[in-house]
Amino acid sequence: HTFKEMQTVTLIPGDGIGPEISSAVMKIFETAKAPIRWEERNVTAIKGPGGRWMIPPDAKESMDKSKIGLKGPLKTPIAAGHPSMNLLLRKTFDLYANVRPCISIEGYKTPYTDVNLVTIRENTEGEYSGIEHVIVDGVVQSIKLITEDASRRIAEYAFEYARNNQRNSVTAVHKANIMRMSDGLFLRKCREVAENYKDIKFTEMYLDTVCLNMVQDPTQFDVLVMPNLYGDILSDLCAGLIGGLGVTPSGNIGANGVAIFESVHGTAPDIAGLDLANPTALLLSAVMMLRHMGLHDYGNKIQTACFDTIRDKKVLTKDLGGNSKCSEFTADICRRIQDLD
Amino acid sequence: HTFKEMQTVTLIPGDGIGPEISSAVMKIFETAKAPIRWEERNVTAIKGPGGRWMIPPDAKESMDKSKIGLKGPLKTPIAAGHPSMNLLLRKTFDLYANVRPCISIEGYKTPYTDVNLVTIRENTEGEYSGIEHVIVDGVVQSIKLITEDASRRIAEYAFEYARNNQRNSVTAVHKANIMRMSDGLFLRKCREVAENYKDIKFTEMYLDTVCLNMVQDPTQFDVLVMPNLYGDILSDLCAGLIGGLGVTPSGNIGANGVAIFESVHGTAPDIAGLDLANPTALLLSAVMMLRHMGLHDYGNKIQTACFDTIRDKKVLTKDLGGNSKCSEFTADICRRIQDLD
Ligand SMILES: CC(C)[C@H](C(=O)O)[C@@H](O)C(=O)O
Ligand SMILES: CC(C)[C@H](C(=O)O)[C@@H](O)C(=O)O
Repeated sequence: HTFKEMQTVTLIPGDGIGPEISSAVMKIFETAKAPIRWEERNVTAIKGPGGRWMIPPDAKESMDKSKIGLKGPLKTPIAAGHPSMNLLLRKTFDLYANVRPCISIEGYKTPYTDVNLVTIRENTEGEYSGIEHVIVDGVVQSIKLITEDASRRIAEYAFEYARNNQRNSVTAVHKANIMRMSDGLFLRKCREVAENYKDIKFTEMYLDTVCLNMVQDPTQFDVLVMPNLYGDILSDLCAGLIGGLGVTPSGNIGANGVAIFESVHGTAPDIAGLDLANPTALLLSAVMMLRHMGLHDYGNKIQTACFDTIRDKKVLTKDLGGNSKCSEFTADICRRIQDLD
Repeated sequence: HTFKEMQTVTLIPGDGIGPEISSAVMKIFETAKAPIRWEERNVTAIKGPGGRWMIPPDAKESMDKSKIGLKGPLKTPIAAGHPSMNLLLRKTFDLYANVRPCISIEGYKTPYTDVNLVTIRENTEGEYSGIEHVIVDGVVQSIKLITEDASRRIAEYAFEYARNNQRNSVTAVHKANIMRMSDGLFLRKCREVAENYKDIKFTEMYLDTVCLNMVQDPTQFDVLVMPNLYGDILSDLCAGLIGGLGVTPSGNIGANGVAIFESVHGTAPDIAGLDLANPTALLLSAVMMLRHMGLHDYGNKIQTACFDTIRDKKVLTKDLGGNSKCSEFTADICRRIQDLD
């Protein structure tokens, strides 16, 4: 190994099984000698000055400094008026792109094989504007907001991602036949940006057509870019194709170089603390993070070890079809990393 | 056979392969002695008084009288300002419910077996309001409209459908965690209506969760009811699960007892007139129509014959994996109907 300077990453272990799977990831990173120093923080929202919900200042400061976060699952807050932590984090760090590579895992049986696509979701506007009104009794409107800036920004991110990750095509997903102005604007920006990436093939497709084609043959897709709600739907649909949220990594890209990688499954309170959780989604998110940081070799090594453990089928957690503990699954991955060296 | 009074149905053969597959259906109905008299009409929009697009008066009159329509595919109009025929028909007859039974067809290979669900889509409002504005340069809003009346109406239809079709549960699909007021209103109406149908189990699920679960195990779903755009997506997704639009029937239920049944695939201009088209989607839509008219025996007989032909795999059109002509496929179904008598 050439000497790598240590980089700090803000670790948000989260709730429920969060701490266990975070420990698993830390152990695997240590074994792989990944040059990461963890700074652990709790992001659960607190009431700030003026009664506004905010993430604790020490968590915010850590992220502002490190720029990179790794986050386990957070429990849905039950306090009245408490915001969704997902939405609050997106807002706090202007996490404008949600990126989800969905790649079939050899040996983990699903109805599909050879899925290899990436959904890129605009994460800040659209149907998530939060603007709604009662017009008259019994008539409600919700406003979907699409801006030129956010559309251009996400389109640019998608094409940059495609180029940097050796992907061949970007498909813009839309309903501009129905929402001619809003989705029309989104689509126009995608087309404009596409002009600057002649090396990447650009196509457009209606959301309904994408859904239909996706379940019939997902191998036809590569990078998909879309407004917020469509991304919410398609990213989960695609996760389902490769085995669900327990094996799907996710990254959120923000302004000013900030990025938070996270597992998008729940906190699984029923098995929390029992050493039964599957750390794969958080681990693969951490692998995405390493690649994002330019540490491809470490990422590849860890991913290979993880996939080998799954393909081998001998040491699997329950949800993956085995009966091993989280610690045993983790140890198997670590052993393979050592063998790779 | 007991004597049945003939009932008139407005037949809209449509464009491209529409006339061929309509002929196939008529031939099969004749063989089955279904008590239907066809009244053929063309619905392609014309410019009415005041420059408003409308369907031709003789088509409108036929539908107003017969109340029941069977419709082949219509080509996308190319004349500037020409409306989508789908949207125009929905509007003209207040077709508020789109109903799509998605049932796995034995012998037709797809990644799933035993799919047996029905999507019920609100078809008149939501994201399809058509109200959009430029707020300032580069900022566009689209308005999603949800009303108490339309939400109650579709919920009632879904529960009635479930009860009349021996189905056990209705799931309301929503994003009320994000669109609290609009999807919240939709959901509230579903809950209220559910109170009147204690024999049917009611559940609620986020759209993203439905998509994820749907591709992992569609057999967990029964009747699903949802606002317009979610229905557009889910109905196509579910069609994909059972083999695509070529084998998926569809019905549109309107106010005042009107209903139009249709195949939702395209006009396939490349094979039009070549006796190569697959009439299954239109035929199964016609079967839905027969059941809707209370003519269950005829519907069941035709469906059995059609499914037997597909299961048998000897006489299939190209898209179904065979190399028979539309007329041969049709003849095979007719032969089986005669054998059933
Ligand atoms: C929890 C909720 C706010 C969220 C969303 O709808 O965006 C979730 O589905 C997600 O994808 O992160
Ligand atoms: C053609 C278009 C208007 C339509 C829609 O979006 O509703 C289509 O996708 C459908 O489902 O009928």
